Amino acid sequence: MKLLFHVSFLGTAYCGYQVQPNGVTVQQKLNEATKSLFGYECDIIGCSRTDSGVHANQFCATVSKKGSSTLETTIPTERIPQAISPYLPEDISVFRAEAVDEGFHPRYDVKYKEYIYQIWNRSERNPFLFDRSWHYPKAISEDAVSKMNEAAAQFVGTHDFASYMASDSKIRDTVRTVYEAEVTRRGDMLIFRVSADGFLYNMVRILTGTLIAVAEGKIGPEDIAAITAAKDRRLAGITVPAHGLFLNRVVY
Amino acid sequence: MKLLFHVSFLGTAYCGYQVQPNGVTVQQKLNEATKSLFGYECDIIGCSRTDSGVHANQFCATVSKKGSSTLETTIPTERIPQAISPYLPEDISVFRAEAVDEGFHPRYDVKYKEYIYQIWNRSERNPFLFDRSWHYPKAISEDAVSKMNEAAAQFVGTHDFASYMASDSKIRDTVRTVYEAEVTRRGDMLIFRVSADGFLYNMVRILTGTLIAVAEGKIGPEDIAAITAAKDRRLAGITVPAHGLFLNRVVY
Repeated sequence: MKLLFHVSFLGTAYCGYQVQPNGVTVQQKLNEATKSLFGYECDIIGCSRTDSGVHANQFCATVSKKGSSTLETTIPTERIPQAISPYLPEDISVFRAEAVDEGFHPRYDVKYKEYIYQIWNRSERNPFLFDRSWHYPKAISEDAVSKMNEAAAQFVGTHDFASYMASDSKIRDTVRTVYEAEVTRRGDMLIFRVSADGFLYNMVRILTGTLIAVAEGKIGPEDIAAITAAKDRRLAGITVPAHGLFLNRVVY
Repeated sequence: MKLLFHVSFLGTAYCGYQVQPNGVTVQQKLNEATKSLFGYECDIIGCSRTDSGVHANQFCATVSKKGSSTLETTIPTERIPQAISPYLPEDISVFRAEAVDEGFHPRYDVKYKEYIYQIWNRSERNPFLFDRSWHYPKAISEDAVSKMNEAAAQFVGTHDFASYMASDSKIRDTVRTVYEAEVTRRGDMLIFRVSADGFLYNMVRILTGTLIAVAEGKIGPEDIAAITAAKDRRLAGITVPAHGLFLNRVVY
Protein backbone atom coordinates (compact mmCIF):
# COMPACT_ATOMS: atom_id res chain seq x y z
CA MET A 1 0.00 0.00 0.00
CA LYS A 2 0.92 3.65 -0.29
CA LEU A 3 -0.84 6.72 1.09
CA LEU A 4 -3.15 9.25 -0.50
CA PHE A 5 -2.97 12.62 1.23
CA HIS A 6 -5.92 15.02 1.10
CA VAL A 7 -4.37 18.43 1.49
CA SER A 8 -5.68 21.98 1.79
CA PHE A 9 -3.44 24.99 1.42
CA LEU A 10 -3.43 28.75 1.15
CA GLY A 11 -1.35 29.25 -1.97
CA THR A 12 -0.33 32.87 -1.34
CA ALA A 13 3.19 32.06 -0.13
CA TYR A 14 3.93 29.37 -2.70
CA CYS A 15 5.13 29.16 -6.29
CA GLY A 16 2.42 26.61 -6.97
CA TYR A 17 2.31 22.94 -6.05
CA GLN A 18 5.13 21.38 -8.00
CA VAL A 19 8.80 21.53 -6.95
CA GLN A 20 10.81 23.93 -9.07
CA PRO A 21 14.34 25.32 -8.90
CA ASN A 22 13.40 28.83 -7.77
CA GLY A 23 10.82 29.47 -5.09
CA VAL A 24 9.13 27.51 -2.34
CA THR A 25 6.39 25.08 -3.36
CA VAL A 26 3.76 23.02 -1.55
CA GLN A 27 5.33 19.78 -2.78
CA GLN A 28 8.66 20.79 -1.26
CA LYS A 29 6.96 21.36 2.11
CA LEU A 30 5.31 17.93 1.85
CA ASN A 31 8.70 16.38 0.96
CA GLU A 32 10.27 17.88 4.06
CA ALA A 33 7.37 16.98 6.35
CA THR A 34 7.12 13.34 5.18
CA LYS A 35 10.87 12.91 5.54
CA SER A 36 10.67 14.20 9.13
CA LEU A 37 7.67 12.03 9.94
CA PHE A 38 8.69 8.73 8.28
CA GLY A 39 12.46 9.10 8.57
CA TYR A 40 13.17 8.60 4.88
CA GLU A 41 12.72 10.47 1.61
CA CYS A 42 9.39 9.99 -0.15
CA ASP A 43 8.06 10.26 -3.66
CA ILE A 44 5.10 12.61 -3.65
CA ILE A 45 2.94 12.77 -6.76
CA GLY A 46 0.22 15.40 -6.96
CA CYS A 47 -3.15 15.29 -8.73
CA SER A 48 -2.22 18.40 -10.74
CA ARG A 49 0.12 21.32 -10.96
CA THR A 50 -1.27 24.54 -9.61
CA ASP A 51 -0.05 28.04 -10.45
CA SER A 52 1.67 30.39 -8.07
CA GLY A 53 -0.89 31.87 -5.65
CA VAL A 54 -3.62 29.31 -6.40
CA HIS A 55 -5.27 27.71 -3.35
CA ALA A 56 -6.71 24.29 -2.63
CA ASN A 57 -9.60 23.22 -0.46
CA GLN A 58 -8.82 19.68 -1.54
CA PHE A 59 -5.65 18.66 -3.30
CA CYS A 60 -4.61 15.00 -3.49
CA ALA A 61 -1.14 13.49 -3.59
CA THR A 62 0.24 9.96 -3.20
CA VAL A 63 3.12 9.28 -0.85
CA SER A 64 5.49 6.33 -1.14
CA LYS A 65 9.09 5.62 -0.16
CA LYS A 66 11.48 7.19 -2.67
CA GLY A 67 12.08 4.88 -5.60
CA SER A 68 9.39 2.46 -4.42
CA SER A 69 5.66 2.17 -4.86
CA THR A 70 4.92 1.36 -1.22
CA LEU A 71 5.22 3.03 2.14
CA GLU A 72 6.20 1.47 5.45
CA THR A 73 5.14 3.05 8.69
CA THR A 74 3.90 1.97 12.09
CA ILE A 75 1.69 5.06 12.39
CA PRO A 76 -1.98 4.14 11.93
CA THR A 77 -3.26 5.79 8.75
CA GLU A 78 -6.02 7.72 10.51
CA ARG A 79 -3.47 9.31 12.86
CA ILE A 80 -1.19 10.59 10.11
CA PRO A 81 -2.91 14.00 9.64
CA GLN A 82 -2.25 14.87 13.28
CA ALA A 83 1.21 13.29 13.29
CA ILE A 84 2.44 15.26 10.28
CA SER A 85 0.90 18.55 11.39
CA PRO A 86 3.90 19.76 13.48
CA TYR A 87 6.18 19.37 10.45
CA LEU A 88 4.03 21.49 8.14
CA PRO A 89 3.66 25.27 7.96
CA GLU A 90 0.35 26.73 9.12
CA ASP A 91 -0.86 27.39 5.57
CA ILE A 92 -0.73 23.70 4.58
CA SER A 93 -2.86 20.98 6.18
CA VAL A 94 -3.13 17.26 5.52
CA PHE A 95 -6.73 16.81 6.62
CA ARG A 96 -7.11 13.15 5.61
CA ALA A 97 -4.84 10.23 4.78
CA GLU A 98 -5.99 6.95 3.26
CA ALA A 99 -4.32 3.77 2.13
CA VAL A 100 -4.47 3.13 -1.63
CA ASP A 101 -3.18 0.35 -3.88
CA GLU A 102 0.33 0.51 -5.28
CA GLY A 103 -1.11 0.91 -8.77
CA PHE A 104 -3.20 3.96 -7.87
CA HIS A 105 -2.22 7.11 -9.73
CA PRO A 106 -3.31 10.48 -8.32
CA ARG A 107 -3.50 12.13 -11.75
CA TYR A 108 -4.60 9.37 -14.15
CA ASP A 109 -7.23 7.93 -11.81
CA VAL A 110 -9.09 11.22 -11.30
CA LYS A 111 -12.77 10.96 -12.34
CA TYR A 112 -13.26 14.70 -12.14
CA LYS A 113 -11.92 17.80 -10.47
CA GLU A 114 -13.83 20.87 -9.39
CA TYR A 115 -12.43 24.38 -9.27
CA ILE A 116 -14.01 27.52 -7.91
CA TYR A 117 -13.07 31.06 -8.80
CA GLN A 118 -13.99 33.82 -6.34
CA ILE A 119 -14.78 37.36 -7.52
CA TRP A 120 -15.17 40.01 -4.83
CA ASN A 121 -17.78 42.22 -6.50
CA ARG A 122 -18.03 45.37 -4.43
CA SER A 123 -16.51 48.80 -4.93
CA GLU A 124 -14.62 48.60 -1.62
CA ARG A 125 -11.87 46.07 -1.17
CA ASN A 126 -12.12 43.43 1.51
CA PRO A 127 -8.92 43.22 3.59
CA PHE A 128 -9.79 39.65 4.59
CA LEU A 129 -10.19 38.41 1.03
CA PHE A 130 -7.55 40.25 -1.01
CA ASP A 131 -5.36 37.15 -1.35
CA ARG A 132 -8.22 34.71 -1.95
CA SER A 133 -10.49 36.47 -4.43
CA TRP A 134 -10.18 38.80 -7.39
CA HIS A 135 -11.47 42.27 -6.71
CA TYR A 136 -13.83 43.37 -9.47
CA PRO A 137 -15.19 46.71 -8.22
CA LYS A 138 -17.83 47.46 -10.90
CA ALA A 139 -21.26 46.13 -9.93
CA ILE A 140 -22.33 43.01 -11.82
CA SER A 141 -26.13 43.02 -12.01
CA GLU A 142 -28.36 40.00 -11.56
CA ASP A 143 -29.17 40.28 -15.25
CA ALA A 144 -25.47 40.09 -16.07
CA VAL A 145 -25.11 37.04 -13.81
CA SER A 146 -27.93 35.36 -15.78
CA LYS A 147 -26.04 36.06 -19.00
CA MET A 148 -22.84 34.67 -17.46
CA ASN A 149 -24.77 31.51 -16.63
CA GLU A 150 -26.15 31.26 -20.16
CA ALA A 151 -22.58 31.46 -21.40
CA ALA A 152 -21.28 29.03 -18.76
CA ALA A 153 -23.87 26.46 -19.86
CA GLN A 154 -22.17 26.48 -23.29
CA PHE A 155 -18.95 25.21 -21.67
CA VAL A 156 -20.68 22.05 -20.44
CA GLY A 157 -20.07 18.95 -22.54
CA THR A 158 -17.16 17.51 -24.50
CA HIS A 159 -15.44 20.25 -26.47
CA ASP A 160 -12.07 21.25 -27.78
CA PHE A 161 -11.10 23.95 -25.29
CA ALA A 162 -8.05 25.24 -27.21
CA SER A 163 -9.51 28.77 -27.19
CA TYR A 164 -9.38 28.70 -23.39
CA MET A 165 -5.80 27.51 -22.97
CA ALA A 166 -2.71 29.66 -22.30
CA SER A 167 -1.19 30.30 -25.73
CA ASP A 168 2.26 29.08 -24.65
CA SER A 169 0.99 25.63 -23.60
CA LYS A 170 2.47 22.66 -25.44
CA ILE A 171 -0.50 20.35 -24.83
CA ARG A 172 -1.78 18.71 -28.07
CA ASP A 173 -4.97 17.02 -26.92
CA THR A 174 -7.18 19.92 -25.95
CA VAL A 175 -10.50 18.06 -25.77
CA ARG A 176 -12.01 17.94 -22.29
CA THR A 177 -15.41 17.16 -20.81
CA VAL A 178 -16.93 19.80 -18.56
CA TYR A 179 -19.64 18.42 -16.28
CA GLU A 180 -20.80 21.55 -14.53
CA ALA A 181 -20.23 25.28 -14.96
CA GLU A 182 -22.21 27.75 -12.91
CA VAL A 183 -21.99 31.23 -11.42
CA THR A 184 -23.66 31.91 -8.08
CA ARG A 185 -23.72 34.96 -5.84
CA ARG A 186 -23.18 34.77 -2.10
CA GLY A 187 -23.46 38.32 -0.75
CA ASP A 188 -20.79 40.38 -2.48
CA MET A 189 -18.95 37.32 -3.73
CA LEU A 190 -19.53 35.83 -7.18
CA ILE A 191 -18.42 32.22 -7.36
CA PHE A 192 -17.76 30.41 -10.62
CA ARG A 193 -17.77 26.65 -10.10
CA VAL A 194 -16.60 24.31 -12.83
CA SER A 195 -15.94 20.58 -12.86
CA ALA A 196 -14.32 18.55 -15.63
CA ASP A 197 -12.40 15.36 -16.30
CA GLY A 198 -9.35 17.54 -16.78
CA PHE A 199 -8.28 21.13 -17.30
CA LEU A 200 -5.90 22.79 -19.73
CA TYR A 201 -3.25 25.27 -18.61
CA ASN A 202 -5.00 28.43 -17.29
CA MET A 203 -8.36 27.08 -18.49
CA VAL A 204 -10.44 28.04 -15.44
CA ARG A 205 -8.91 31.52 -15.35
CA ILE A 206 -9.63 32.06 -19.05
CA LEU A 207 -13.19 30.67 -18.78
CA THR A 208 -13.72 33.11 -15.89
CA GLY A 209 -12.26 35.97 -17.92
CA THR A 210 -14.62 35.06 -20.75
CA LEU A 211 -17.60 35.17 -18.37
CA ILE A 212 -16.42 38.61 -17.19
CA ALA A 213 -16.42 39.73 -20.85
CA VAL A 214 -20.01 38.47 -21.01
CA ALA A 215 -20.89 40.47 -17.88
CA GLU A 216 -19.35 43.54 -19.51
CA GLY A 217 -21.37 42.99 -22.70
CA LYS A 218 -18.24 42.50 -24.82
CA ILE A 219 -19.19 38.91 -25.58
CA GLY A 220 -22.74 37.56 -25.79
CA PRO A 221 -23.72 34.11 -24.49
CA GLU A 222 -24.62 33.28 -28.10
CA ASP A 223 -20.99 33.94 -29.16
CA ILE A 224 -19.49 31.18 -27.01
CA ALA A 225 -20.04 28.34 -29.48
CA ALA A 226 -18.19 30.24 -32.22
CA ILE A 227 -15.33 31.21 -29.86
CA THR A 228 -14.95 27.57 -28.86
CA ALA A 229 -15.11 26.34 -32.46
CA ALA A 230 -12.44 28.83 -33.59
CA LYS A 231 -9.76 27.26 -31.30
CA ASP A 232 -8.25 30.73 -31.08
CA ARG A 233 -7.06 32.01 -27.69
CA ARG A 234 -7.43 35.62 -28.85
CA LEU A 235 -11.21 35.38 -29.08
CA ALA A 236 -11.75 34.39 -25.43
CA GLY A 237 -11.58 36.71 -22.41
CA ILE A 238 -8.63 37.69 -20.26
CA THR A 239 -6.75 35.34 -17.94
CA VAL A 240 -7.97 36.52 -14.54
CA PRO A 241 -5.46 36.56 -11.63
CA ALA A 242 -4.42 33.31 -9.95
CA HIS A 243 -5.28 34.36 -6.39
CA GLY A 244 -9.07 33.95 -6.87
CA LEU A 245 -8.70 30.29 -7.89
CA PHE A 246 -9.22 27.24 -5.66
CA LEU A 247 -8.95 23.57 -6.50
CA ASN A 248 -12.08 22.64 -4.58
CA ARG A 249 -12.59 18.92 -5.02
CA VAL A 250 -10.90 15.86 -6.49
CA VAL A 251 -13.04 12.80 -7.10
CA TYR A 252 -11.59 9.33 -7.87
CA MET B 1 -16.33 69.45 9.99
CA LYS B 2 -13.84 66.64 10.12
CA LEU B 3 -14.09 63.06 8.85
CA LEU B 4 -14.87 59.80 10.58
CA PHE B 5 -13.32 56.85 8.77
CA HIS B 6 -14.81 53.37 9.12
CA VAL B 7 -11.92 51.03 8.53
CA SER B 8 -11.49 47.27 8.27
CA PHE B 9 -8.10 45.61 8.40
CA LEU B 10 -6.37 42.26 8.59
CA GLY B 11 -4.02 42.84 11.52
CA THR B 12 -1.53 40.07 10.74
CA ALA B 13 1.12 42.36 9.25
CA TYR B 14 0.76 45.15 11.80
CA CYS B 15 2.05 45.96 15.27
CA GLY B 16 -1.46 47.01 16.23
CA TYR B 17 -3.31 50.20 15.38
CA GLN B 18 -1.37 52.92 17.11
CA VAL B 19 1.88 54.43 15.77
CA GLN B 20 4.93 53.25 17.65
CA PRO B 21 8.68 53.62 17.17
CA ASN B 22 9.35 50.03 16.05
CA GLY B 23 7.14 48.25 13.57
CA VAL B 24 4.52 49.16 11.03
CA THR B 25 1.05 50.10 12.32
CA VAL B 26 -2.36 50.70 10.77
CA GLN B 27 -2.35 54.34 11.93
CA GLN B 28 0.95 54.92 10.11
CA LYS B 29 -0.58 53.56 6.89
CA LEU B 30 -3.59 55.86 7.35
CA ASN B 31 -1.23 58.81 7.98
CA GLU B 32 0.59 58.12 4.72
CA ALA B 33 -2.58 57.57 2.71
CA THR B 34 -4.37 60.71 3.97
CA LYS B 35 -1.26 62.80 3.28
CA SER B 36 -1.15 61.48 -0.28
CA LEU B 37 -4.87 62.03 -0.79
CA PHE B 38 -5.34 65.46 0.82
CA GLY B 39 -1.85 66.84 0.21
CA TYR B 40 -1.15 67.69 3.85
CA GLU B 41 -0.43 65.89 7.09
CA CYS B 42 -3.45 64.85 9.14
CA ASP B 43 -4.19 64.06 12.76
CA ILE B 44 -5.75 60.62 12.94
CA ILE B 45 -7.33 59.57 16.22
CA GLY B 46 -8.53 55.99 16.61
CA CYS B 47 -11.41 54.61 18.67
CA SER B 48 -9.02 52.31 20.53
CA ARG B 49 -5.59 50.76 20.49
CA THR B 50 -5.47 47.24 19.22
CA ASP B 51 -2.71 44.70 19.88
CA SER B 52 -0.32 43.33 17.31
CA GLY B 53 -2.12 40.79 15.10
CA VAL B 54 -5.64 41.85 16.13
CA HIS B 55 -8.08 42.45 13.26
CA ALA B 56 -10.98 44.83 12.72
CA ASN B 57 -14.21 44.42 10.82
CA GLN B 58 -15.04 47.96 11.89
CA PHE B 59 -12.55 50.35 13.41
CA CYS B 60 -13.27 54.09 13.57
CA ALA B 61 -10.89 57.02 13.41
CA THR B 62 -11.31 60.76 12.97
CA VAL B 63 -9.26 62.63 10.39
CA SER B 64 -8.48 66.35 10.53
CA LYS B 65 -5.70 68.59 9.27
CA LYS B 66 -2.64 68.32 11.52
CA GLY B 67 -2.91 70.74 14.45
CA SER B 68 -6.50 71.64 13.55
CA SER B 69 -9.92 70.19 14.30
CA THR B 70 -11.24 70.51 10.77
CA LEU B 71 -10.49 69.09 7.37
CA GLU B 72 -10.62 70.84 4.01
CA THR B 73 -11.10 68.90 0.84
CA THR B 74 -12.98 69.22 -2.42
CA ILE B 75 -13.56 65.46 -2.60
CA PRO B 76 -17.20 64.63 -1.81
CA THR B 77 -17.31 62.65 1.44
CA GLU B 78 -19.03 59.63 -0.12
CA ARG B 79 -16.25 59.33 -2.71
CA ILE B 80 -13.41 59.27 -0.19
CA PRO B 81 -13.33 55.48 0.35
CA GLN B 82 -12.66 54.91 -3.33
CA ALA B 83 -10.32 57.88 -3.61
CA ILE B 84 -8.06 56.76 -0.76
CA SER B 85 -8.03 53.11 -1.79
CA PRO B 86 -4.99 53.34 -4.16
CA TYR B 87 -2.90 54.79 -1.31
CA LEU B 88 -3.65 51.99 1.12
CA PRO B 89 -2.23 48.46 1.27
CA GLU B 90 -4.61 45.62 0.37
CA ASP B 91 -5.08 44.55 3.99
CA ILE B 92 -6.56 47.91 5.04
CA SER B 93 -9.81 49.34 3.68
CA VAL B 94 -11.68 52.54 4.44
CA PHE B 95 -15.18 51.30 3.66
CA ARG B 96 -17.10 54.40 4.75
CA ALA B 97 -16.34 58.05 5.45
CA GLU B 98 -18.73 60.48 7.11
CA ALA B 99 -18.61 64.10 8.17
CA VAL B 100 -18.72 64.68 11.94
CA ASP B 101 -18.68 67.78 14.13
CA GLU B 102 -15.38 69.26 15.20
CA GLY B 103 -16.16 68.33 18.80
CA PHE B 104 -16.71 64.65 18.03
CA HIS B 105 -14.24 62.33 19.74
CA PRO B 106 -13.79 58.79 18.35
CA ARG B 107 -12.92 57.34 21.75
CA TYR B 108 -14.95 59.33 24.30
CA ASP B 109 -18.13 59.36 22.21
CA VAL B 110 -18.33 55.58 21.81
CA LYS B 111 -21.62 54.16 23.18
CA TYR B 112 -20.36 50.61 22.93
CA LYS B 113 -17.91 48.41 21.09
CA GLU B 114 -18.28 44.79 20.13
CA TYR B 115 -15.45 42.29 19.82
CA ILE B 116 -15.54 38.75 18.53
CA TYR B 117 -13.02 36.04 19.29
CA GLN B 118 -12.77 33.11 16.86
CA ILE B 119 -11.77 29.63 18.03
CA TRP B 120 -11.13 27.02 15.33
CA ASN B 121 -12.30 23.89 17.16
CA ARG B 122 -11.27 20.94 15.07
CA SER B 123 -8.32 18.60 15.36
CA GLU B 124 -7.01 19.55 11.91
CA ARG B 125 -5.76 23.06 11.28
CA ASN B 126 -7.41 25.24 8.67
CA PRO B 127 -4.84 26.84 6.33
CA PHE B 128 -7.33 29.59 5.49
CA LEU B 129 -7.94 30.59 9.09
CA PHE B 130 -4.60 30.19 10.87
CA ASP B 131 -4.05 33.96 11.08
CA ARG B 132 -7.65 34.84 11.98
CA SER B 133 -8.63 32.29 14.60
CA TRP B 134 -7.05 30.43 17.47
CA HIS B 135 -6.66 26.72 16.83
CA TYR B 136 -8.03 24.74 19.77
CA PRO B 137 -7.82 21.12 18.58
CA LYS B 138 -9.58 19.31 21.45
CA ALA B 139 -13.32 18.91 20.81
CA ILE B 140 -15.52 21.26 22.85
CA SER B 141 -18.87 19.50 23.37
CA GLU B 142 -22.25 21.18 23.15
CA ASP B 143 -22.54 20.64 26.89
CA ALA B 144 -19.28 22.51 27.41
CA VAL B 145 -20.54 25.35 25.17
CA SER B 146 -23.62 25.60 27.41
CA LYS B 147 -21.37 25.91 30.44
CA MET B 148 -19.30 28.57 28.66
CA ASN B 149 -22.52 30.49 28.06
CA GLU B 150 -23.57 30.15 31.70
CA ALA B 151 -20.21 31.63 32.63
CA ALA B 152 -20.39 34.34 29.93
CA ALA B 153 -23.76 35.45 31.30
CA GLN B 154 -21.96 36.30 34.56
CA PHE B 155 -19.82 38.85 32.72
CA VAL B 156 -22.90 40.85 31.69
CA GLY B 157 -23.58 43.94 33.79
CA THR B 158 -21.51 46.60 35.52
CA HIS B 159 -18.57 44.98 37.29
CA ASP B 160 -15.01 45.66 38.30
CA PHE B 161 -13.13 43.64 35.67
CA ALA B 162 -9.68 43.91 37.30
CA SER B 163 -9.36 40.11 37.35
CA TYR B 164 -9.61 40.14 33.56
CA MET B 165 -7.01 42.82 32.85
CA ALA B 166 -3.35 42.30 31.87
CA SER B 167 -1.41 42.49 35.15
CA ASP B 168 0.98 45.13 33.79
CA SER B 169 -1.78 47.59 32.92
CA LYS B 170 -1.68 50.96 34.68
CA ILE B 171 -5.43 51.66 34.39
CA ARG B 172 -7.03 52.61 37.74
CA ASP B 173 -10.74 52.62 36.91
CA THR B 174 -11.45 49.01 36.07
CA VAL B 175 -15.26 49.15 36.20
CA ARG B 176 -16.93 48.51 32.88
CA THR B 177 -20.43 47.61 31.71
CA VAL B 178 -20.75 44.52 29.54
CA TYR B 179 -23.99 44.45 27.52
CA GLU B 180 -23.72 41.12 25.81
CA ALA B 181 -21.48 38.06 26.12
CA GLU B 182 -22.28 34.91 24.21
CA VAL B 183 -20.62 31.89 22.65
CA THR B 184 -22.07 30.45 19.45
CA ARG B 185 -20.92 27.65 17.16
CA ARG B 186 -20.85 27.97 13.39
CA GLY B 187 -19.61 24.67 12.00
CA ASP B 188 -16.14 24.08 13.45
CA MET B 189 -15.80 27.68 14.61
CA LEU B 190 -16.70 28.82 18.11
CA ILE B 191 -17.36 32.54 18.27
CA PHE B 192 -17.32 34.52 21.51
CA ARG B 193 -19.09 37.85 21.05
CA VAL B 194 -18.89 40.53 23.72
CA SER B 195 -20.01 44.16 23.77
CA ALA B 196 -19.26 46.76 26.42
CA ASP B 197 -18.95 50.49 27.00
CA GLY B 198 -15.20 49.95 27.17
CA PHE B 199 -12.58 47.24 27.52
CA LEU B 200 -9.51 46.91 29.72
CA TYR B 201 -6.14 45.87 28.33
CA ASN B 202 -6.36 42.24 27.10
CA MET B 203 -9.84 41.93 28.60
CA VAL B 204 -11.50 40.07 25.72
CA ARG B 205 -8.58 37.67 25.42
CA ILE B 206 -8.66 36.95 29.18
CA LEU B 207 -12.46 36.56 29.22
CA THR B 208 -12.06 34.07 26.36
CA GLY B 209 -9.30 32.24 28.19
CA THR B 210 -11.56 32.03 31.23
CA LEU B 211 -14.35 30.52 29.12
CA ILE B 212 -11.85 27.97 27.80
CA ALA B 213 -11.01 27.07 31.41
CA VAL B 214 -14.76 26.55 31.90
CA ALA B 215 -14.90 24.30 28.80
CA GLU B 216 -12.00 22.30 30.26
CA GLY B 217 -13.77 21.96 33.61
CA LYS B 218 -11.03 23.87 35.46
CA ILE B 219 -13.45 26.64 36.37
CA GLY B 220 -17.20 26.22 36.91
CA PRO B 221 -19.74 28.82 35.75
CA GLU B 222 -20.61 29.22 39.43
CA ASP B 223 -17.01 30.33 40.18
CA ILE B 224 -17.13 33.41 37.96
CA ALA B 225 -18.70 35.75 40.52
CA ALA B 226 -15.97 34.96 43.05
CA ILE B 227 -13.19 35.34 40.45
CA THR B 228 -14.60 38.74 39.49
CA ALA B 229 -15.00 39.83 43.12
CA ALA B 230 -11.41 38.86 43.96
CA LYS B 231 -9.93 41.41 41.48
CA ASP B 232 -7.03 39.00 41.06
CA ARG B 233 -5.68 38.33 37.57
CA ARG B 234 -4.24 34.99 38.70
CA LEU B 235 -7.69 33.50 39.23
CA ALA B 236 -8.93 34.05 35.67
CA GLY B 237 -7.97 31.98 32.60
CA ILE B 238 -5.09 32.41 30.19
CA THR B 239 -4.69 35.30 27.76
CA VAL B 240 -5.54 33.62 24.45
CA PRO B 241 -3.54 34.66 21.34
CA ALA B 242 -4.23 37.99 19.64
CA HIS B 243 -4.81 36.59 16.15
CA GLY B 244 -8.33 35.25 16.95
CA LEU B 245 -9.57 38.70 18.01
CA PHE B 246 -11.60 41.12 15.90
CA LEU B 247 -12.97 44.54 16.78
CA ASN B 248 -16.33 43.90 15.16
CA ARG B 249 -18.46 46.99 15.69
CA VAL B 250 -18.21 50.51 17.08
CA VAL B 251 -21.46 52.29 17.94
CA TYR B 252 -21.67 56.06 18.64
